[in-house]
Amino acid sequence: MSEAHFGTASAPLEQPLAADPRARVLVAGASGFTGALAARLVWEHPRLELAAATSRTDSGRRLDRLYPRHRVPVELEELDLERAASLDAAIVAYPHGAAAPLVADLRGAGLPVVDLSADFRLHDRSAYERTYGEHGAPELLGDAVYGLTELHRDRIAEAGLVANPGCYPTAALLALAPLAEAGLIGDVVIDAKSGISGAGRGGGDRLHFSNVGENFSPYGTDGHRHAPEIAQELAELGVGGPVTFVPHLLPIDQGLLASCYVTLPEGTPPEEVHSRYERYAAEPFVEVVDEPPGVRDVRDTNLCLIHVAVDEGSGRAMVFAAIDNLWKGAASQAVQNLNLMLGLPEGEGIS
Amino acid sequence: MSEAHFGTASAPLEQPLAADPRARVLVAGASGFTGALAARLVWEHPRLELAAATSRTDSGRRLDRLYPRHRVPVELEELDLERAASLDAAIVAYPHGAAAPLVADLRGAGLPVVDLSADFRLHDRSAYERTYGEHGAPELLGDAVYGLTELHRDRIAEAGLVANPGCYPTAALLALAPLAEAGLIGDVVIDAKSGISGAGRGGGDRLHFSNVGENFSPYGTDGHRHAPEIAQELAELGVGGPVTFVPHLLPIDQGLLASCYVTLPEGTPPEEVHSRYERYAAEPFVEVVDEPPGVRDVRDTNLCLIHVAVDEGSGRAMVFAAIDNLWKGAASQAVQNLNLMLGLPEGEGIS
Amino acid sequence: MSEAHFGTASAPLEQPLAADPRARVLVAGASGFTGALAARLVWEHPRLELAAATSRTDSGRRLDRLYPRHRVPVELEELDLERAASLDAAIVAYPHGAAAPLVADLRGAGLPVVDLSADFRLHDRSAYERTYGEHGAPELLGDAVYGLTELHRDRIAEAGLVANPGCYPTAALLALAPLAEAGLIGDVVIDAKSGISGAGRGGGDRLHFSNVGENFSPYGTDGHRHAPEIAQELAELGVGGPVTFVPHLLPIDQGLLASCYVTLPEGTPPEEVHSRYERYAAEPFVEVVDEPPGVRDVRDTNLCLIHVAVDEGSGRAMVFAAIDNLWKGAASQAVQNLNLMLGLPEGEGIS
Amino acid sequence: MSEAHFGTASAPLEQPLAADPRARVLVAGASGFTGALAARLVWEHPRLELAAATSRTDSGRRLDRLYPRHRVPVELEELDLERAASLDAAIVAYPHGAAAPLVADLRGAGLPVVDLSADFRLHDRSAYERTYGEHGAPELLGDAVYGLTELHRDRIAEAGLVANPGCYPTAALLALAPLAEAGLIGDVVIDAKSGISGAGRGGGDRLHFSNVGENFSPYGTDGHRHAPEIAQELAELGVGGPVTFVPHLLPIDQGLLASCYVTLPEGTPPEEVHSRYERYAAEPFVEVVDEPPGVRDVRDTNLCLIHVAVDEGSGRAMVFAAIDNLWKGAASQAVQNLNLMLGLPEGEGIS
Repeated sequence: MSEAHFGTASAPLEQPLAADPRARVLVAGASGFTGALAARLVWEHPRLELAAATSRTDSGRRLDRLYPRHRVPVELEELDLERAASLDAAIVAYPHGAAAPLVADLRGAGLPVVDLSADFRLHDRSAYERTYGEHGAPELLGDAVYGLTELHRDRIAEAGLVANPGCYPTAALLALAPLAEAGLIGDVVIDAKSGISGAGRGGGDRLHFSNVGENFSPYGTDGHRHAPEIAQELAELGVGGPVTFVPHLLPIDQGLLASCYVTLPEGTPPEEVHSRYERYAAEPFVEVVDEPPGVRDVRDTNLCLIHVAVDEGSGRAMVFAAIDNLWKGAASQAVQNLNLMLGLPEGEGIS
Repeated sequence: MSEAHFGTASAPLEQPLAADPRARVLVAGASGFTGALAARLVWEHPRLELAAATSRTDSGRRLDRLYPRHRVPVELEELDLERAASLDAAIVAYPHGAAAPLVADLRGAGLPVVDLSADFRLHDRSAYERTYGEHGAPELLGDAVYGLTELHRDRIAEAGLVANPGCYPTAALLALAPLAEAGLIGDVVIDAKSGISGAGRGGGDRLHFSNVGENFSPYGTDGHRHAPEIAQELAELGVGGPVTFVPHLLPIDQGLLASCYVTLPEGTPPEEVHSRYERYAAEPFVEVVDEPPGVRDVRDTNLCLIHVAVDEGSGRAMVFAAIDNLWKGAASQAVQNLNLMLGLPEGEGIS
Repeated sequence: MSEAHFGTASAPLEQPLAADPRARVLVAGASGFTGALAARLVWEHPRLELAAATSRTDSGRRLDRLYPRHRVPVELEELDLERAASLDAAIVAYPHGAAAPLVADLRGAGLPVVDLSADFRLHDRSAYERTYGEHGAPELLGDAVYGLTELHRDRIAEAGLVANPGCYPTAALLALAPLAEAGLIGDVVIDAKSGISGAGRGGGDRLHFSNVGENFSPYGTDGHRHAPEIAQELAELGVGGPVTFVPHLLPIDQGLLASCYVTLPEGTPPEEVHSRYERYAAEPFVEVVDEPPGVRDVRDTNLCLIHVAVDEGSGRAMVFAAIDNLWKGAASQAVQNLNLMLGLPEGEGIS
Repeated sequence: MSEAHFGTASAPLEQPLAADPRARVLVAGASGFTGALAARLVWEHPRLELAAATSRTDSGRRLDRLYPRHRVPVELEELDLERAASLDAAIVAYPHGAAAPLVADLRGAGLPVVDLSADFRLHDRSAYERTYGEHGAPELLGDAVYGLTELHRDRIAEAGLVANPGCYPTAALLALAPLAEAGLIGDVVIDAKSGISGAGRGGGDRLHFSNVGENFSPYGTDGHRHAPEIAQELAELGVGGPVTFVPHLLPIDQGLLASCYVTLPEGTPPEEVHSRYERYAAEPFVEVVDEPPGVRDVRDTNLCLIHVAVDEGSGRAMVFAAIDNLWKGAASQAVQNLNLMLGLPEGEGIS
């Protein structure tokens, strides 16, 4: 809501921004949970303009009807590729599989793209196709940069296509990267828990309040599709041992905690473990905290809170990372990446 | 979190605000739910400075330990009246009874004060004392302006002491004022429901998750202390008939809905009812909506959403008002009022 | 789970019941929330046998897969009318409209039937058709007894067809009947709140956790379909004045509270109001309590707790009734009625 | 609620039980969450009589005021040891430390005792005292049998003193025992999550709805007091490798899930893992299920649902066990044990 809405008692703050040219952004797939939030973040962003919010299922409806809490007074449109081609950047929030062809079109038109789907997260086409089915634009796989900002900031700033990480990988990798980089991960168990918004707007019966409210359960115990993504990134950081990942469904809307149990090389002193997390000292959106975080602490923020403990008896490090699955786990990290790609301050519009 | 925290890829936005002198504000009682939120809103406010956050019970602790989600890296202090006297304004969030003497001191030192307690809401000392016990500063009762911004904006702008309304009265009065002003209220039933944060940080066992979670119940059925406040304000707007008010406890943290059932004068046409709500057309923080609002729609905002329906069969208007009890029902309305008192744009820092 | 499952350390209790012939009961529509619970109550009932549990949408699936918590190890079948005709009784849990033809068939075969739909609740065909569309078996309207047990026990015991009340009417009518019977209701506002299971298993997006969790809102403000049912029954009890009814959606699974605000005849003494509730002194499933009830207090029970207060200032009685919408508001009241129809102890299997 | 409460339409079932002598049971500490539930289970038990329910903090209050949902119309008393000595058995639900002296007194009087505290769970006095402080009756440590029914059924049936397991150990040990007994546990990570009732009735602010609702966090990351209990029992089953245990707090009232990650001996075939769980085939209260369980599936039951999966890639078995922390994790397991001690069918009153 801009200041102009208020009958103010004195003159409002000057808005030097209004004079600036803002980057005109397309949000494609703005009727899903993450797309709608991305649209809101662009809408509120001082340097971006929400030039178009499109939906394959809800075009013609107003976004503030679908999601009153986001307060974006904009009508959802059908995607018009010609018009899209004239814009400055795009965030794509299509389902896996449907995203790739659109991304290819937008890249063909020269737009920088952040893709929220899984379509460009796995570098290896066959790994992708085992999990998600045929790939719609394999020729772009080599161009995509994996968009975990804190790990790949420089490459993201140069990229034309950024594959925004999944919510579970975001938390797990931020928790584990400092140990992985130092060669301190023998093996690891990642027991993760996400609020229900992480499962998306579809889902039917399965996400009915009466099924998931007042309940808690593991799922995907025969192999969740975020597992290859986590494995790929850990392997790149040098982890060779086994990685186990199991997600669980929390009876809350937003919030995700990854509890990571790492077998350390024998004799690793606890201080060695803790010191690795100084890596994040200058990070604006990662905080290492000395008490276990709750997911409420990061709700509606781009923050990741990390708590590290060492269980000397078992020789394990225990690392807990809390994020908001819709924000740092999806839409606000997309804006963080887009900021970098456009040469804007990284935290603009998401702080 | 200020922009200075980011290692930005290009120069950050200029901050003309930083050059401005900001009003230095005391938040007294910043360890309770509403005081802590008030401290956060002042902390994030571009024109205010959180000069001191005090607590009688938690001085020495950091606010961001008590309330990590507010992210205010400030240590709670004991109140130092001499220092307080040198500041520009105060928000007082003490419990009822304890607030009056402090307010008297701060007013004596010349500070504009917004008081979040009930101590100055009732104009009539005996009405106050029937409900809350002896009054600690009755000499100030005549000076206090009832701080429902949308009803008393001009007087608030001139006031030295503003009594911030209770959460239930805020919603109920915003729902009913348009009809009351037009003489359209014969009698009224107000069935109100509030999230659990409305009951405050104390409360012990009664607010244990296992008692209030997955539960719902009325309370105060023998007379809630917000009833005289609602009655006073409705009487001032000309309502003469009986007013019934019953609160209920919702198993959510933040959010309040007042469902108001008004007996209309016989033959009142529905359009007459609806037209009265055009009164709010220019209000920045009140929106009349054509579908029943949910409390999630206003969470973490200063907004009040109002839905009006007329049941012609029974001759009743039904008016539903949704607010966030901690925001518009307390802390953000306090900042809205303080903005007016200090000559700042009304929506600064809370939009 | 029968005792036979246990490897017991000593002989189990004798089971005289096992020798008894049990009434063989059909539960039609056992895949919805209320039908599934009805099937469970029949399954656990010492005098009833769950002879068939049918589903139009889920036949072939096991009930304990769909609803693990009910622990009914039975496969859902397609309805076989011929076989159904050979059974002793039926509970029908079809949607409104679909129920009437099946009920007609079962009645034609001579089975006593409790119908959980709205199809036989309204005596007046045109009132039904205004709300629900064409009636599928209007010839049976005259035979159906409205199944609010505490009001119509004797007629239910004689009936061949019982129309089980809606969840909102159950609570509202139990709250109001004592005053209605005594001519003490001038007008009444019923502000009701139900857990989300009351909205049924369908509902799609609307009942997604992310929409209704941590939220609260009114609905049906332009006329809920339970309103004519409440009005009919109150009219039969002699209430002539206006009745207003508004439901709200609570972020819990099970539980319903009706808050009723009654304008009393002038000068009605409070004791007169309270004394009317002695009417329930001998009722096994209605309790008048001296503190406001919470819906958790009645969860998973057939109980209705009622609290009565008189606001002398406004001349209103305030009556609060708490039930479990799936139990007393649907399935357990159906069993209560079926017990009566079959000559069994009323509380058998639901105490 | 006994049948006698109902105005039944036909004669109630005969109650052969009424004629039986019932065992008269003391529940000491019946005002806490687990003690109150134990009192309810004894109250409803066909072979037990709730001879006295005592409380150190709430004597004189009625149990159905403190816990309306349990519906036990009994006044809490001060403990009268002389009278207690005349009874047949006792369940003690005192806090850790306070339980031991009372247990000693009751054992001295010859009563069979089930103790819900931790006081007799650890065989090793010094292990106990490191965690809980000085032990009040160390002379009894040798007599106590660890009351995980499915592991120690025969010894429990002979015991005079049973130490009822903690809620986390109950789930974790039922999940792991089959693998431990077979020597298949190299090391294990136990990531456990409990509903808030597990934290007990005290706790003040920390368990305020506004702190734990809509939230989720780990706790006890520097060593939870259930860890030595789990370690002791696993060691007795032959587990030599490291055991890591971390609990988390779920925003629900009742329900607990233990997710266990076991490193298997190299080359262990998945079938070998699964076959070990046939151990539970005849168990009345343990079910091995082929889909991941939700905690709602076991709410208000004495059941433990176990799901086993093998991640061949990492060589790990993943075992998930769901219980109700207040039931199988405390009060209903206490009754299960008491049934055995008294020679009653094990499932009596808790099926």
